[in-house]
Amino acid sequence: MIKTFEIKLETDGDGDIHDLTNSVSELVRKSSINSGTVTVFIPGSTAGISTIEYEPGLLKDIPTLLEKLIPSTIEYEHDKTWGDGNGFSHLRAMLIGPDLTVPFVGGKLTLGRWQQIVFLEFDNRPRSRTVVLQVIGD
Amino acid sequence: MIKTFEIKLETDGDGDIHDLTNSVSELVRKSSINSGTVTVFIPGSTAGISTIEYEPGLLKDIPTLLEKLIPSTIEYEHDKTWGDGNGFSHLRAMLIGPDLTVPFVGGKLTLGRWQQIVFLEFDNRPRSRTVVLQVIGD
Amino acid sequence: MIKTFEIKLETDGDGDIHDLTNSVSELVRKSSINSGTVTVFIPGSTAGISTIEYEPGLLKDIPTLLEKLIPSTIEYEHDKTWGDGNGFSHLRAMLIGPDLTVPFVGGKLTLGRWQQIVFLEFDNRPRSRTVVLQVIGD
Repeated sequence: MIKTFEIKLETDGDGDIHDLTNSVSELVRKSSINSGTVTVFIPGSTAGISTIEYEPGLLKDIPTLLEKLIPSTIEYEHDKTWGDGNGFSHLRAMLIGPDLTVPFVGGKLTLGRWQQIVFLEFDNRPRSRTVVLQVIGD
Repeated sequence: MIKTFEIKLETDGDGDIHDLTNSVSELVRKSSINSGTVTVFIPGSTAGISTIEYEPGLLKDIPTLLEKLIPSTIEYEHDKTWGDGNGFSHLRAMLIGPDLTVPFVGGKLTLGRWQQIVFLEFDNRPRSRTVVLQVIGD
Repeated sequence: MIKTFEIKLETDGDGDIHDLTNSVSELVRKSSINSGTVTVFIPGSTAGISTIEYEPGLLKDIPTLLEKLIPSTIEYEHDKTWGDGNGFSHLRAMLIGPDLTVPFVGGKLTLGRWQQIVFLEFDNRPRSRTVVLQVIGD
């Protein structure tokens, strides 16, 4: 049994992190599927999906870390191809990855108490995003 | 067809890496599902799931690499929120990710010969962990 | 409903990145499964699966970034175990991960317009690779 859902987001550009947990939980319940997995996927190559403890400190630490590992101030070869200056966004997105698969049992996600499903915007401008959820189970 | 299992672990804190391959293989067999996928998921935001060749050299290289990329000696904004000093643990967990999905065929995981499924502890203290397996297939 | 497929690749060694999108799309269509997920998995611990915009600039940026984060010029503990000099390959593979799960709807992958599914070779020599696809849906 398969149910597909979408979550629409307006983002503020690089460093904007959205907590999707409530939306994903509600859509899993709405699917009426009892047990299975939900795959959370972002179509696009300048954003990522992961889990974190969604609290103000980490929302600052994550952009700081990514700026250290993959600086936005360097010119990348990608920027020579398109001139849109978001080479760093693509590299950060590859590192974090576009997909996350979370089990659920009895309609409830098996997340930890301090673990939230997040969308991470890495692009260098605000974007309209559509996250895809594929709920599979019985 | 869906079967859910748990693997319980006691960890030694940051840098402790456990080989889950035998447990996952046995539980997939026990599910009596012939072909499908197993999603291995860690509830919690200070640990990760991945695959590596589980050999003594890499078990040292991985903590060394993560200490270089995300030092435990820096104070993170997260540490100001909670004072538990494990900001680095959260960042390492986000980088590695909490989920892994492995196909199996004829009851056998499609792993490489030198590839093991591992749980990586990043927290700064010993933890009791429960890894969730969701086996889906026919 | 489950269908398993394989994609065979000959790679040039570290830094070789292959676009799998057309192969994955065709095999999903061939499965005759309407909606579900495809899990793309690489058996082996020195390669990865991810999504990127497959364009010449990023194909240079990705190896440059990985060389900066995980240099091939350092001796790793892994290299002392086996003497094959590919400790860096294992570490890069762990960072990127061996699996990717992509939803599809009406036989069509939900990828972004500029987003391709890629295989990344990290090993220090040419390899023959077999990527596994597990298509699950109804």
